[in-house]
Amino acid sequence: MPQSVAHKLIASHLVDGSMRPGDEIALTVDQTLTQDATGTLVMQELEALDLDRTRAQLSVQYVDHNLLQADEKNAEDHAFLRSAAQRYGIWYSKPGNGVSHPTHMQRFGIPGATMAGSDSHTCAAGSLGMLAIGVGGLEVAMAIAGQPLHLRMPEIWGVRLTGELPPWVSAKDVVLEMLRRHTVQGGVNRIIEYTGPGLDGLTAMDRHVIANMGAELGATTTVFPADGAVHEFLRSEGRADDFRELLPDADAAYDRHEEIDLSALEPLIAMPSAPDNVVPVREVAGRPVNQVVVGSSANPGLRDFAVTAEIVRGQQTDDAVSFDINPTSREILEDMAKTGALFDLIAAGGRIHQSGCMGCIGMGQAPAVGHNSLRTFPRNFPGRSGTEEDSVWLCSPETAAAAALTGMITDPRELAGERGMQPPRPTLPADASVNTSMLVAPLPPEQAREQQLERGPNISELPDFPPLPGRIEAPVLLKTGDNVSTDEISPAGARALPYRSNIPQLAEFTFTRIDPHYPERARELMGGSGHVVVGGSNYGQGSSREHAAITPRYLGLRAVIAKSFARIHWQNLANFGILALEFSDPGDYDRIGRDDVLVLDDLTDSLRAGADLVVHNRTRDERFRVHHSLSQRQVDSVLEGGQIPLLARTRQASR
Amino acid sequence: MPQSVAHKLIASHLVDGSMRPGDEIALTVDQTLTQDATGTLVMQELEALDLDRTRAQLSVQYVDHNLLQADEKNAEDHAFLRSAAQRYGIWYSKPGNGVSHPTHMQRFGIPGATMAGSDSHTCAAGSLGMLAIGVGGLEVAMAIAGQPLHLRMPEIWGVRLTGELPPWVSAKDVVLEMLRRHTVQGGVNRIIEYTGPGLDGLTAMDRHVIANMGAELGATTTVFPADGAVHEFLRSEGRADDFRELLPDADAAYDRHEEIDLSALEPLIAMPSAPDNVVPVREVAGRPVNQVVVGSSANPGLRDFAVTAEIVRGQQTDDAVSFDINPTSREILEDMAKTGALFDLIAAGGRIHQSGCMGCIGMGQAPAVGHNSLRTFPRNFPGRSGTEEDSVWLCSPETAAAAALTGMITDPRELAGERGMQPPRPTLPADASVNTSMLVAPLPPEQAREQQLERGPNISELPDFPPLPGRIEAPVLLKTGDNVSTDEISPAGARALPYRSNIPQLAEFTFTRIDPHYPERARELMGGSGHVVVGGSNYGQGSSREHAAITPRYLGLRAVIAKSFARIHWQNLANFGILALEFSDPGDYDRIGRDDVLVLDDLTDSLRAGADLVVHNRTRDERFRVHHSLSQRQVDSVLEGGQIPLLARTRQASR
Repeated sequence: MPQSVAHKLIASHLVDGSMRPGDEIALTVDQTLTQDATGTLVMQELEALDLDRTRAQLSVQYVDHNLLQADEKNAEDHAFLRSAAQRYGIWYSKPGNGVSHPTHMQRFGIPGATMAGSDSHTCAAGSLGMLAIGVGGLEVAMAIAGQPLHLRMPEIWGVRLTGELPPWVSAKDVVLEMLRRHTVQGGVNRIIEYTGPGLDGLTAMDRHVIANMGAELGATTTVFPADGAVHEFLRSEGRADDFRELLPDADAAYDRHEEIDLSALEPLIAMPSAPDNVVPVREVAGRPVNQVVVGSSANPGLRDFAVTAEIVRGQQTDDAVSFDINPTSREILEDMAKTGALFDLIAAGGRIHQSGCMGCIGMGQAPAVGHNSLRTFPRNFPGRSGTEEDSVWLCSPETAAAAALTGMITDPRELAGERGMQPPRPTLPADASVNTSMLVAPLPPEQAREQQLERGPNISELPDFPPLPGRIEAPVLLKTGDNVSTDEISPAGARALPYRSNIPQLAEFTFTRIDPHYPERARELMGGSGHVVVGGSNYGQGSSREHAAITPRYLGLRAVIAKSFARIHWQNLANFGILALEFSDPGDYDRIGRDDVLVLDDLTDSLRAGADLVVHNRTRDERFRVHHSLSQRQVDSVLEGGQIPLLARTRQASR
Repeated sequence: MPQSVAHKLIASHLVDGSMRPGDEIALTVDQTLTQDATGTLVMQELEALDLDRTRAQLSVQYVDHNLLQADEKNAEDHAFLRSAAQRYGIWYSKPGNGVSHPTHMQRFGIPGATMAGSDSHTCAAGSLGMLAIGVGGLEVAMAIAGQPLHLRMPEIWGVRLTGELPPWVSAKDVVLEMLRRHTVQGGVNRIIEYTGPGLDGLTAMDRHVIANMGAELGATTTVFPADGAVHEFLRSEGRADDFRELLPDADAAYDRHEEIDLSALEPLIAMPSAPDNVVPVREVAGRPVNQVVVGSSANPGLRDFAVTAEIVRGQQTDDAVSFDINPTSREILEDMAKTGALFDLIAAGGRIHQSGCMGCIGMGQAPAVGHNSLRTFPRNFPGRSGTEEDSVWLCSPETAAAAALTGMITDPRELAGERGMQPPRPTLPADASVNTSMLVAPLPPEQAREQQLERGPNISELPDFPPLPGRIEAPVLLKTGDNVSTDEISPAGARALPYRSNIPQLAEFTFTRIDPHYPERARELMGGSGHVVVGGSNYGQGSSREHAAITPRYLGLRAVIAKSFARIHWQNLANFGILALEFSDPGDYDRIGRDDVLVLDDLTDSLRAGADLVVHNRTRDERFRVHHSLSQRQVDSVLEGGQIPLLARTRQASR
């Protein structure tokens, strides 16, 4: 049967299960990616797993999130990560080297390989023809330990691109169009595979933009073919030898089909505060703008900065606009300096920040309340900027630069009319600056074994995870709406992120965006039966952070009952022993109130017996049906209290 | 009589008093400088003064401190400052434009002028032959309102420089030598004036380095002559017309004398954790270093970055070192980009941060506990980095760059030996990049009057300051021991600092280190007679923050009776209408208890009549004598409720 790129990638790594959508499959993992916000836990998990050395072909630990260093905690995390990377045979990318996704693409990505990454935008590596999946930290730890990655076989969604992007329209507008059409849930349990003649006009870095924000569509991942554009990219990075072609077979079958005529696209923008709240820029033009931020893994390439620089060159950004530039990697910053783009940005009033994620994960750059902020970022969930009542818009570098000049939302095509500007066509160097010196290579095994972990005072050990009780009788401590993100469950941002290595401290931030009193109310029940959370659909969308499972678990969360779950968070719940249940009749959601006491009985037997359970709402004396989607493997894990106690027990038993 | 530069500057601005050391003098103020951490209060004070427009020749509001924007408060402060600057005819330097001191020097400083600045390093402008003095915010507000600056006439300390700096030794080593010789108290009540043939080898920006850290010597300010080097500097900035020569008369008399042979200097370093803990670098060479930071107002010039770049060019900084670069102004960053220095720093592993103070005022860049951090900064007080138990060292760019390369403290002269390096001699452009577009010019008066203040939710108005009542009958709410610091009265730190624009919120932290219930107990008495605090000796030592007077005043503090007061806090109490009284017999301190009700009668007449008052302890029915040290000017101010209501009334009367 003719195969798609996605099918080929899966087939070549399949160690268990069949490629029927919905079935659980197990894949070997070639590469792993961790960043600092999730990596400290991964390293603690490797320690708990008693690992000697990574068994993946390549593992890289990046430091790109916690770069502000308001106190010693960030620097201590960096030192801990450096020592742990050295201990376990993992590459270490120093703070300042850049955002993991473009850096990995530049230095390590290989067509045809699989990758597990503890960052939801890991999927960006699909731009090279990799199968790169963002998962919880524990799954990356397992992959580092040589275990296969388990997931449900997704549908493969072929998106055929035709035509060519018009002037002032770029890759970001393609993925915004996908979000406009399909919302943040459109890609759930699907791999998006881009095909068609329209690919010819998209560089590998353009494809990174599109693959990256596949995460916002909820997709398992996004893949592109490894074709001439990928070859050219690897050549420009001095890695032509790493290229191997990977194309879909002619007549490859896809589970679903979609077509986008690139020629018909226009500049798009996601309005506050959801990535799928997409409209044409012209429909919202004229609104005042006080901040423009260019950068992040969603627009990481030299091209994106060069386009911005060309648009603002020789002009001044508006008086009332803070024009923030976040170079995404040190190499790109070098090239920005070489090509003069950096100079143009500075001269036009740019605030040049250190290379890293910065405002994209709420590390500074928070806007004032009521001030519109236009960003080339992937996400604009409410409050993610660090400002509770923020107004963050997502757009292309072209649209961002236009707003920086005019101080208002502006269709960049207007610059051609009003200012007589030519569409930006920056000349990029044929060869990228290659500089690997901020990548600290793994130590040889004998030296690695002597490496001590440098554990600062803020780095806790993982809490205990006791088994699931046979009976849950606990109140609904929180009832949320739809699309609750992990940012709302366990916030990022400059206040919370420094505690990423310290679960008891971090737990104090759990759900506080929704209910400031949640931690204290949960704490009151911690000794006893714990509590339950009821959610709407797409519960746990957004980042891969397993803290969103661990911190409520630490506070006594036993079960979440929701209309539906986002993939990674659902997996994280299972990994850490929280029962994720879906309403069999979504209408039952309306028949539960906060503080209602729910009873789940005979859990061990029920979970083992099948997917269906009955919940007794003791407060209302009503019963309703729920079901779970756990595999038998996952049922065992949840019953044991999660993967870590399960593994510990397995190891104990085998001694 | 032949005059020094300092004498000429004072004589040309003297409006009251005589130039006898120790006497109170009053000087007209030509220019004012405020930064964002102190400026929001200054703008609120201008509002309270009902000012229409600055009466200084030039006023500039910089934004250089609070640039991290972890939440909306910083951005709201920026928007408020921008609107207030526009309202009051003040230049506004946008976030990202740079650190106030080098930026002011580049764009606004004028030889022969006076300046009052609400930043302790305001003295850096002495490099241009200005008399620039760092004072409390209200004194700057008064200067903006056209009032003269009052201070005690300092001694003039002539420091004669001879010889020429050896290779690998630079201006920072000169001021470190001063600190080594004279400690952080060496300059108290003195103006340091540099003279002699050694000046010929020091550019204006080198002199900035030395003048800046006069603050660390405790000096009132530092002055240099306005000579050829200053002329050349202004020419390179496109401001040759602003030059006017200002030289000391031959045989000018100085109150004290000092001589430094520049040729005899070697690389110096201030060890943790005091700027005067200075030793030769060679004596501490070999200690491991995990962070190197280049930048700050203490080493702000293009030369300092170019030297660093030349030393690291084509090499890699050590694996274990975070090499942080804080460009001090946008113009300097432009020149760094132009000259290629920026590229060299990036390529060598530099983390390029936005232009501003950054780690120098604890805004990020905090090191891990126990990790040595070498910085070209002016201060290394314990914990100032953001890390409580930090190890911060102060040094020149040459010494910093050497450590970045080797990963240990290294005498830069060793680079010549071990690596065969030539001493850095970077070629600097003859003309600086001049780009004023991030400086928002004052509005014309008629437009300015229509400007509304953009007051975010976290920005309060200054509270009202009603006149001192004729009779105080109030309880002793707090009785403290000796040496109470302003940190204990109004704490700094990450929790309190974001509220610096919000007196009611900030007041909730008042005295809480001594008594957590002070704010609530004070609040209960706010509607009535207020309260009194009794203190020991050296009451109010430490920082100059005026919040330590304003927040207890807001909570109803009427009078402090103490054994003695620290000078600056005493002045702040007077400025904000709190009666500062000293026990005539310190033994009476022991005859007062907390909650005793004290009565002070006929205050208006008593204060005007002389220095002595009688207090009636109603609770114990005892009387004791106290006295004040207020000048008649200050008595008027205190009676009126402080400087702000006094000025408001004066202006009202004159209408």
